[in-house]
Amino acid sequence: MRFAKGHGTGNDFVIVPDVDGALDLSPERVARLCDRRQGIGGDGLLRVVRTAKHPDAADQVGETEWFMDYFNADGSYAEMCGNGVRVFVRYLLDAGLADGPEIPVATRAGIRRARVEGENVTVDMGAPRLLGPSVATLGGVAYPGIGVDMGNPHLVCATDALDALDLTEAPGYDRTLYPTGVNVEFTEGARMRVYERGVGETDSCGTGACAVAVVALRGAAGSTPVRVPGGLLTVTLDGETCWLSGPAVIVASGELAEGF
Amino acid sequence: MRFAKGHGTGNDFVIVPDVDGALDLSPERVARLCDRRQGIGGDGLLRVVRTAKHPDAADQVGETEWFMDYFNADGSYAEMCGNGVRVFVRYLLDAGLADGPEIPVATRAGIRRARVEGENVTVDMGAPRLLGPSVATLGGVAYPGIGVDMGNPHLVCATDALDALDLTEAPGYDRTLYPTGVNVEFTEGARMRVYERGVGETDSCGTGACAVAVVALRGAAGSTPVRVPGGLLTVTLDGETCWLSGPAVIVASGELAEGF
Repeated sequence: MRFAKGHGTGNDFVIVPDVDGALDLSPERVARLCDRRQGIGGDGLLRVVRTAKHPDAADQVGETEWFMDYFNADGSYAEMCGNGVRVFVRYLLDAGLADGPEIPVATRAGIRRARVEGENVTVDMGAPRLLGPSVATLGGVAYPGIGVDMGNPHLVCATDALDALDLTEAPGYDRTLYPTGVNVEFTEGARMRVYERGVGETDSCGTGACAVAVVALRGAAGSTPVRVPGGLLTVTLDGETCWLSGPAVIVASGELAEGF
Repeated sequence: MRFAKGHGTGNDFVIVPDVDGALDLSPERVARLCDRRQGIGGDGLLRVVRTAKHPDAADQVGETEWFMDYFNADGSYAEMCGNGVRVFVRYLLDAGLADGPEIPVATRAGIRRARVEGENVTVDMGAPRLLGPSVATLGGVAYPGIGVDMGNPHLVCATDALDALDLTEAPGYDRTLYPTGVNVEFTEGARMRVYERGVGETDSCGTGACAVAVVALRGAAGSTPVRVPGGLLTVTLDGETCWLSGPAVIVASGELAEGF
């Protein structure tokens, strides 16, 4: 079985080309592949399948050729992943499966438009929705913040001591307002750190970077850099949707050992 | 540039075949390759070089064909790594560079004998030396232990609540007795967890498993299983040296992307 490994600002993925949707990728096999020590290692797995060959993409056939079949590292499905789409598009280009600069990608959340410009890949993350204020707590300190809905919930909190935060601990939040949890972004100027719900601190979070930009731009059209621990992203609001832009890299490709 | 990835009980390595010693592997490049998110990812890197082609193996030419040029994940050299030798030998076999069952490996710490039996690879870890008692502290609790020198220093401490230990914190130890630090193994029955000095808790530690067996067998000849978080090892003392045995697996092989 062939594979590749790639990342977008440190959000990394095992990529499995399976153009005809013929592979049997059980949740257990996905989890083994994403295991960082006993497998290849990644935050998630991107299966590259033709829309015509995957039942979950049936309504997108004819609109675009490629479906991003996305799995979390534990083998569960996820609908969308912004950095995942960016790396997926880079893979399509490198593998000669698509031509730029515009490459639409089918996902379980619908078609996502993507664009390639040199080392950067830009993806349409959908329309943001500014929510009201709320408060996160960390280490006994209260951080006032602003909520943003990017399809998933975010709470963006400013601080003047970003590097000193201990994010090995999960921030507290208002469970009435966020009954299924919330991703918490702490910001200082253009820099952010994120605690992803159910995961912990990560090097990068596409929807989180968008949420931070939405708060920085107060929801108005414009463009702003967002520095995550894994690199530099740029977010552009055009009044309708949110564009996430940044480097997406294929690091290696190869073949799994027999029996793995 | 070709590479492989493999592991021994969760101690994982990037393997770089460079039979003629022609590659320029700077510490920065090694660190990039071992980066788990923006590279391939591993606890260390094993360069596979002919003894005749590496200056550090000059005194071992004629004794064995292959030199394990070992690097830590930060790009620094290390002299030896037990699980590294086991994975190195598995690579030699899978790549058709050596025949079993006996395969001696040149290292910076001298020739290490290795033996292949099915999925297990066994390596001579050298003569252990039992040291005196000492005490580790963790979470305000004192754990009496026994010191073992395996070329590097270990302190083996029994507990009856192994799973409850918080090893995100470094254990305290006697800095007079261990001026350069000590690896601390906590044991309960045949199970162990290890805090490696300068690293933190790891899934496996070859010399640590040997130290635990030396204490369990009170330095006498015999064989004992040692279960590390990443799998099952067996350690055998023959009155002279210490043999470490367990599975060693090549997971994948491939090619780095251009420019990486």
